Amino acid sequence: MNKFMSEALNEAYKGLEERGIPIGSVVVKNGEIIGRGHNRRMQRNSAILHAEMDALESIGRQPASFYSDIVLYTTLSPCSMCSGTILLYKIPHVVIGENRNFLGEEDLLRDRKVIVEVLDDRDCFEVMRNFILSKPLLWNEDIGT
Amino acid sequence: MNKFMSEALNEAYKGLEERGIPIGSVVVKNGEIIGRGHNRRMQRNSAILHAEMDALESIGRQPASFYSDIVLYTTLSPCSMCSGTILLYKIPHVVIGENRNFLGEEDLLRDRKVIVEVLDDRDCFEVMRNFILSKPLLWNEDIGT
Repeated sequence: MNKFMSEALNEAYKGLEERGIPIGSVVVKNGEIIGRGHNRRMQRNSAILHAEMDALESIGRQPASFYSDIVLYTTLSPCSMCSGTILLYKIPHVVIGENRNFLGEEDLLRDRKVIVEVLDDRDCFEVMRNFILSKPLLWNEDIGT
Repeated sequence: MNKFMSEALNEAYKGLEERGIPIGSVVVKNGEIIGRGHNRRMQRNSAILHAEMDALESIGRQPASFYSDIVLYTTLSPCSMCSGTILLYKIPHVVIGENRNFLGEEDLLRDRKVIVEVLDDRDCFEVMRNFILSKPLLWNEDIGT
């Protein structure tokens, strides 16, 4: 597996260990991971700490120029909130583990000139599918359905 | 002024007192304020705590049905991130203090059937204009430019 997606998946597994929703994300700049996080809905009683948000928040405040060459890795296709955040900071490149369990706002991102790569990774798919099957209500809550 | 927008503006003033960015938001359900917040970029070294996010986070985890009749008040037109969050949770109605200092994703929200009202409130406009004039770099950071 892509080494950065592997790290995002490790974040997803961390979330699972914490009895949370197993979605992970890392932020890469100049070939190095500079931020990482995972969904913390359960752990923090949070409506906004999706994995991508948690990873971006781990870096704290930054000027716009900081985001101009980063790559955001996420194990699952980004929802409207996370996609909106990608657009706010003009993050140019997003790599997605899989989008079969959930298809987020990939079309909107591409329309706005974000490079969107989908790896269709089996491990990212499996961890999410198993979670959705075991905790469908919690999953629905996380995607607002 | 609209009484709920007045409370959102009070949140903006709280942010200003804390040497933060003066944008405020309240969440209204059944005619009562059930959540409130303000931009905490400075206060929390945060990339994601815009006013609307802070107000929604103040309510914590909720099922999708919870959001189906809420009204989100915000002193300033919502950026891509906050608009994406509105779409994620299918918040049906957003009331905006003003959009002359910053025009967010109102068109996208309307395209997705969100009711968007703009009050063009003078006080909301003034507090934001004064802040932008006094701290333009911080403002640019907050909107990713």
